[in-house]
Amino acid sequence: MEAIARRAGVSKETLYRWWPSKIEVILAAMVEHGQVSIPLPDSGDLPGDLRAFLRSTIDALDGTTALLLRAVAAAAATDQAVADGVRDRFLHTRRAALGTLLDRAVARGEIPDEHTTSLVDFVYGSLWYRLIFGIGRLDHRWADETATAITAITAISRQPAPLPPLPPG
Amino acid sequence: MEAIARRAGVSKETLYRWWPSKIEVILAAMVEHGQVSIPLPDSGDLPGDLRAFLRSTIDALDGTTALLLRAVAAAAATDQAVADGVRDRFLHTRRAALGTLLDRAVARGEIPDEHTTSLVDFVYGSLWYRLIFGIGRLDHRWADETATAITAITAISRQPAPLPPLPPG
Repeated sequence: MEAIARRAGVSKETLYRWWPSKIEVILAAMVEHGQVSIPLPDSGDLPGDLRAFLRSTIDALDGTTALLLRAVAAAAATDQAVADGVRDRFLHTRRAALGTLLDRAVARGEIPDEHTTSLVDFVYGSLWYRLIFGIGRLDHRWADETATAITAITAISRQPAPLPPLPPG
Repeated sequence: MEAIARRAGVSKETLYRWWPSKIEVILAAMVEHGQVSIPLPDSGDLPGDLRAFLRSTIDALDGTTALLLRAVAAAAATDQAVADGVRDRFLHTRRAALGTLLDRAVARGEIPDEHTTSLVDFVYGSLWYRLIFGIGRLDHRWADETATAITAITAISRQPAPLPPLPPG
């Protein structure tokens, strides 16, 4: 906190008035970072939107960000009050962004409405799981594979309708 | 470690010879707990298998287990060596169990081979994500909704094949 106050040219008291703890400063920075560096694509179809959104998410996950997010996860895992704050102040903003993409796909008839909460869990769940436990890669290939697996659920509406039977004769 | 040694009737030295740290004891207990309390169903179709498997997984997640798993996540998030151990010694056993169910579904032609790694990530990712950050419920309804969303991906193979065109005349 001392270093941040010095760099921002304000007193530590001012800093604490706005962000009562270190985790609050980190969360505010993460919210801002996400909003600035992860645009909401609107390409007109879910596979394209999801791929672009997940690639930007990965690009935003630089070394410092990954380190801070792992620290946030550790704090949340051992303190329910911290977990509540992380969920309501930061995770919520990311879920809402992805939710917007999914809601547009529902409105276009691409995916059924009933699975959107599970899909948001699947995307951010696998991201945090890989980040925390160092499972596999977190790169553009991961982004593309995840987008493909998620949109496989749309397959049902993408099946060509069966051809009508030929008229007799 | 002292309490475990006393209860097991062995010296602390013996305990440390088998499990060099507290996290190792916890991981060994978690592996055993998973194997004993989460049977591998074989009902002949993926939706049924997945629902039964996820319900048992939730049943195995009692208060003490949830607390231990959160402690394990916190340790892994801040120490790469711990994360490696958790991944290779514990998460691997759970991934392999779920992988067996998915491989059987692939062999039956229910789901394509290419998404199985993503599906394993989706299931355990959303489980850890909800556990660590206290997002939503983790109960039988969660198990059923997750099983349904995951198996929605099988929808493509469940579409009836289009009827062959009628013979002319």
